[in-house]
Amino acid sequence: MKKSTGAASTVYPEPVFMVATYNDDGTPNAMAAAWGGIANDKLISICIDKGHRTAENVVKRGAFTVSMADEANIVACDYLGIVSGNDVPDKFARSGLHATRSDLVDAPVIDELCMCLECEVVDYVDETLTGIIVDIKADESVLTDGKIDVEKLKPVVYDPVAHTYRSIGGVVGRAFGDGKKLM
Amino acid sequence: MKKSTGAASTVYPEPVFMVATYNDDGTPNAMAAAWGGIANDKLISICIDKGHRTAENVVKRGAFTVSMADEANIVACDYLGIVSGNDVPDKFARSGLHATRSDLVDAPVIDELCMCLECEVVDYVDETLTGIIVDIKADESVLTDGKIDVEKLKPVVYDPVAHTYRSIGGVVGRAFGDGKKLM
Repeated sequence: MKKSTGAASTVYPEPVFMVATYNDDGTPNAMAAAWGGIANDKLISICIDKGHRTAENVVKRGAFTVSMADEANIVACDYLGIVSGNDVPDKFARSGLHATRSDLVDAPVIDELCMCLECEVVDYVDETLTGIIVDIKADESVLTDGKIDVEKLKPVVYDPVAHTYRSIGGVVGRAFGDGKKLM
Repeated sequence: MKKSTGAASTVYPEPVFMVATYNDDGTPNAMAAAWGGIANDKLISICIDKGHRTAENVVKRGAFTVSMADEANIVACDYLGIVSGNDVPDKFARSGLHATRSDLVDAPVIDELCMCLECEVVDYVDETLTGIIVDIKADESVLTDGKIDVEKLKPVVYDPVAHTYRSIGGVVGRAFGDGKKLM
């Protein structure tokens, strides 16, 4: 018997996207975002409250990157999710993370996070930022046979009810595989 | 040093949303969707290819539900992701799952999956289905102190590179907490 728990913005899993942009002065900025996901085979959509500095930056620069928050950098990523770039303009420097300019889009790629989507802005409407995924960059250290290996990447999952970050666990099924038992 | 892995619709984590609707004849239909997420504090957005029966159903009924695929039901959920309702109109019945009519929206709630968002369609444009989250229902068995407990729910994560389903692992950080060390 199911019970009402009330309307809420809760699904499992929610991501911890680190959205990085350049400020007016060319310094990097980054924020954490859990509301969003792949929109179709080419696009990603992320809710960015218009009060964020990121909102201004994406409109001005027409670009952003999305890195996956990971276990190794959880303190810095959480810090970037707590502190506003409007209050602490150099928050990215204070996080201890570093960034390198993307060679494809006008946005910073966070050095310490090992997987990064480089995106060009399609639009920013009703606080929804949509970008075309131009490329995905990854450190050699998280690749196996040239492909991203989630066990090496160790991205985190956000639990919006308990407000915790969780790891991704072991394999519990094969997609487009297990279901064939019922065919 | 980061390396290009090519543009792809890959982020971590991706969800395994089971989107359930009613067919014309009143039987339930459900499909799996990994592209989507929370759109803002009231809305969820999911990419639904227009070829899916779900696309037709959401337009006609103006409602759908989203349940989280879980470890216990991974075979049935994967089956619903492989087989098209156009090819196998009774695929939901064949999955072995059951459904009960939502008391809030014109859509079925999958009995075996313990957490379900009941949604009214806002729009379906460019293959993006957007719905307002009217309520979230959960089985008592996955609640702790009245709140959804991810350790009881055991929702799965989709790995779009390896095409596997993974569990959600242990706590690796506190959101709006760990980052305070840097303030």
